[in-house]
Amino acid sequence: MPRALTNEEQNWVEQTLNAMSLPEKIGQTMQAHAGRLPFKQNDEQALAAYLNKYPVGSFFIGGEVIQKAAGKAGEYREWIELLQKLSRVPLLFSGDLEAGAGSAVRSLTTFPPLPALAAADDEALAYAYGKFTALEGRAAGFTWALAPTVDIVLNWMNPIITTRCLGDDAKRVARLSAAILRGMQDHGMAACAKHFPGDGVDYRDQHIITTINDLSEEEWFGTYGEVSAHLIQAGVMTYMTGHIALPWLEKVPHGEPPVPATVSYPITTQLLRERLGFEGVILSDALDMGGFLAWGDYRKRIVDCFNCGTDVLLWPGVRYFEVMEQALADGSVTLERLDASVRRVLVLKARLGMQRLDLAGRDPLAQELRNDTLPQELDLEARELSRTLGERCVTLVRNRQQLLPLDPLKTKRVLVIMLNKATEGRKFVRMELFVDLLRARGLEVDLLEEFEPLDTLQKWEMSGVRWDAAFAPYFMPLHGMMNTARPVGEAAKAIWAMLHAETIRPIGVSFATPYLLRDMPFLDTLVNAYSLHAESVEFTVKALFGEVPFQGVSPVQAEDHS
Amino acid sequence: MPRALTNEEQNWVEQTLNAMSLPEKIGQTMQAHAGRLPFKQNDEQALAAYLNKYPVGSFFIGGEVIQKAAGKAGEYREWIELLQKLSRVPLLFSGDLEAGAGSAVRSLTTFPPLPALAAADDEALAYAYGKFTALEGRAAGFTWALAPTVDIVLNWMNPIITTRCLGDDAKRVARLSAAILRGMQDHGMAACAKHFPGDGVDYRDQHIITTINDLSEEEWFGTYGEVSAHLIQAGVMTYMTGHIALPWLEKVPHGEPPVPATVSYPITTQLLRERLGFEGVILSDALDMGGFLAWGDYRKRIVDCFNCGTDVLLWPGVRYFEVMEQALADGSVTLERLDASVRRVLVLKARLGMQRLDLAGRDPLAQELRNDTLPQELDLEARELSRTLGERCVTLVRNRQQLLPLDPLKTKRVLVIMLNKATEGRKFVRMELFVDLLRARGLEVDLLEEFEPLDTLQKWEMSGVRWDAAFAPYFMPLHGMMNTARPVGEAAKAIWAMLHAETIRPIGVSFATPYLLRDMPFLDTLVNAYSLHAESVEFTVKALFGEVPFQGVSPVQAEDHS
Repeated sequence: MPRALTNEEQNWVEQTLNAMSLPEKIGQTMQAHAGRLPFKQNDEQALAAYLNKYPVGSFFIGGEVIQKAAGKAGEYREWIELLQKLSRVPLLFSGDLEAGAGSAVRSLTTFPPLPALAAADDEALAYAYGKFTALEGRAAGFTWALAPTVDIVLNWMNPIITTRCLGDDAKRVARLSAAILRGMQDHGMAACAKHFPGDGVDYRDQHIITTINDLSEEEWFGTYGEVSAHLIQAGVMTYMTGHIALPWLEKVPHGEPPVPATVSYPITTQLLRERLGFEGVILSDALDMGGFLAWGDYRKRIVDCFNCGTDVLLWPGVRYFEVMEQALADGSVTLERLDASVRRVLVLKARLGMQRLDLAGRDPLAQELRNDTLPQELDLEARELSRTLGERCVTLVRNRQQLLPLDPLKTKRVLVIMLNKATEGRKFVRMELFVDLLRARGLEVDLLEEFEPLDTLQKWEMSGVRWDAAFAPYFMPLHGMMNTARPVGEAAKAIWAMLHAETIRPIGVSFATPYLLRDMPFLDTLVNAYSLHAESVEFTVKALFGEVPFQGVSPVQAEDHS
Repeated sequence: MPRALTNEEQNWVEQTLNAMSLPEKIGQTMQAHAGRLPFKQNDEQALAAYLNKYPVGSFFIGGEVIQKAAGKAGEYREWIELLQKLSRVPLLFSGDLEAGAGSAVRSLTTFPPLPALAAADDEALAYAYGKFTALEGRAAGFTWALAPTVDIVLNWMNPIITTRCLGDDAKRVARLSAAILRGMQDHGMAACAKHFPGDGVDYRDQHIITTINDLSEEEWFGTYGEVSAHLIQAGVMTYMTGHIALPWLEKVPHGEPPVPATVSYPITTQLLRERLGFEGVILSDALDMGGFLAWGDYRKRIVDCFNCGTDVLLWPGVRYFEVMEQALADGSVTLERLDASVRRVLVLKARLGMQRLDLAGRDPLAQELRNDTLPQELDLEARELSRTLGERCVTLVRNRQQLLPLDPLKTKRVLVIMLNKATEGRKFVRMELFVDLLRARGLEVDLLEEFEPLDTLQKWEMSGVRWDAAFAPYFMPLHGMMNTARPVGEAAKAIWAMLHAETIRPIGVSFATPYLLRDMPFLDTLVNAYSLHAESVEFTVKALFGEVPFQGVSPVQAEDHS
């Protein structure tokens, strides 16, 4: 459990609360999306006017802001200081810092994602993962990581957390995620465990529609419930509810829509708050997601979301103020309930030391920035952690023909069968890093990425071309409405091409799902690298050629043993 | 069971068998792909030389030949007569006539696919479906339909037969497929029940890899086994084995590859031939499919396929002759086994009256062709059947808001949210027929088919545009390596856009999977039309506007009741 507040902190909370106007209280219970501010973001007058009219309590900073700020940590910090200066009540700034502060700010460090951390399975590394996310993030102005993902991948077809969580074992998820959040919270960053009551059971994506965690009560307490209890015990400051229904707790008649946690009193208040005893801030998942939108009209959605026990609503839009004032006026929301949430938000701010900001909005608890990174020693430590994880995660899942490691002296010409042409309109250029690294070794690389790979491969084989190794790297971004974790479309055709070829023994390399064998069980050789994190790709290539060992252990059951 | 042969037919079989050279016998046990002949196809000298060197017993005619022949039935018939004239032993010509002879020959009739037939659920229509497939097909020279699909869709995620089979109920599948095959076989066309031991359980596609039917023995006999027994009783002349394993019958140690039916003695001989008592011709599925290629090298694959009990191998390529001669020479294939398969093929030819072809290769049992169609009366009957099925199949799956039928007087401007941008490199132009029919009614149609449908839809709504109806038509071709039956990629984003919109109540229309509600359970209005069959689309539009009733009944459990 988190420490008790000091008297001074407690006083600040109560005094701040007592001095608040109604709009200021309402504002504490929403989080705005900085990328959607309706003006150029460093316009001080416009910002001041905005905060005066909409005194929000926190901002989320995502991709759009990065682009405007060219990804420099210093620019974030300056902008955040400006907002802090302009806001009467100190603000919190959140980001999807799931894989380091580099997930949000380009000049900072991006670590490999959680499945890679789970493949290394080392609590000390997990603590450091949280620590450097916090130190770097706070230096750039962030105080609230919407991380770690504490879901459990119980359904390998889940299209959203398969590449974003700590695997399929509840105990490992609990152990490593607790280490991450301690690392974060010990270094000035609120962690946010997500997504309650747990993603990873449904085959669908709550960005698109409401999903369902259909475990029984007993199964739930043996998995997600166990993780939650462990994290609450470890003192997690905030929890994110997802647009995920939990039928054992709230069963609806056939034909009625499922009730996502984000509007469910039984899930949010009775289970998370009361039964599990979580006392921190409950943040909803983003309210522009399909899984929430289906619930009802705007007013109904918002009021139900607040009343079910949510403290902070994520991206409700500024109509929120008007709807809440009306709801308070007509009694559908009570002031008592509002004050309870505002108090929890202020307690969180006090814990993070927000009352210590100076009048210029500067944060005395943040590390200095040098050239948009941490001071040299810390920066080196963060980058070293990134390399270490990149090296430690690479997992040899299968090596039945003992093809690996490849002999660098005998490997001259290689084939790369690209498996990522999944959807129209996107280019996954980062897959090219793998090819670039092969070419940088002096290898002759033939690239198969045709619409009709079968014919091309046959043509090459019949013309007498032979390869010393054939790689089948796979990547598909899950957090992008793909609605599948499996190779589909032209990627599926490439699988066929591989089987059709007569001279190759394909070496699979997954830079995404750890479950490639479920669709390609014939692969006798498979390496899981979990992501396109640059150093993971680098060490994958080194490991393929025997320059470093494969050290990772798959955090999921990679093949079907049924 | 089929009738016994007459003495005359029996004599023809034995005399033909006795007069055969070894290559001729081997040739009877393979089926060549006419589209892959290594020369221009109406070159008589080249054809004669080919048949002399490779005396194959049957040809498959697919898409490639259609293109060359401009889809005219007369050209097929002429070309087939030429081959019959040149071949010493009469040939069989097969096609994927799954939805009428129009599936292979453009000038003939294409019916709605089997799910639509199952939605009409009428044995008389099913018999007529088989009858006209046979009359039209045989008029164009075909004698062997690789149809009907007798699979059962027990896993809604199956990416290959979800839109090609008669639904999820074994009894309905047995009843309707028996009617189809009787209609075919009563009118001079061999039917082929496929795919033994049954597709529809796995989430994968045997075009890509070997799939697994993992039912228990008891479950199998209560579903696929029941269908097989019924069809064998009904006298089905041929059966196609799939690249599908059946672990209750042939369990392999962990780590060993699954054994597809196409190389499995227990499945092909012990189960299909002996236990179920099938006496007809067993044809393998195509041997260039991924599900077969993984089995071993070419020689091993071919010999195992033949020896497991297959009578005719589909598309092994002409290397088959050499490999089989060698296998007969070294004793790995016996002459007795070869003769048994050749005899079954000749019995099939005799049943179909192939011994009655004249010296010019003409078929006295075939209907005449007039302008590349059947004689007028029969042709009208076939086209009328197509319209009837198009009208009878359209199914109102949900109408919770009573939006349907739409009032033609009040419906002026409509939105169409295209959901078919599934994969790169393909254009699914046939979805446009739906839009064309709306426009032909004088409706103003706004088409949403952007890469970022969310933004566009918002922009339109904010500009004040309102629609009297919003359609979400869905189509994705399953038989095209998509490896999924679900809306993926940009299609998934379009689902989100629908929920994000504030002013529309989407009317879903599936022109493919009948399971759209599994991914879009929020849809309060859904029509299943099963395919883009022109008249089905036409009657769908009519039914939407109340001009005809919705008559179909879903042949699958469209939503999850668990």
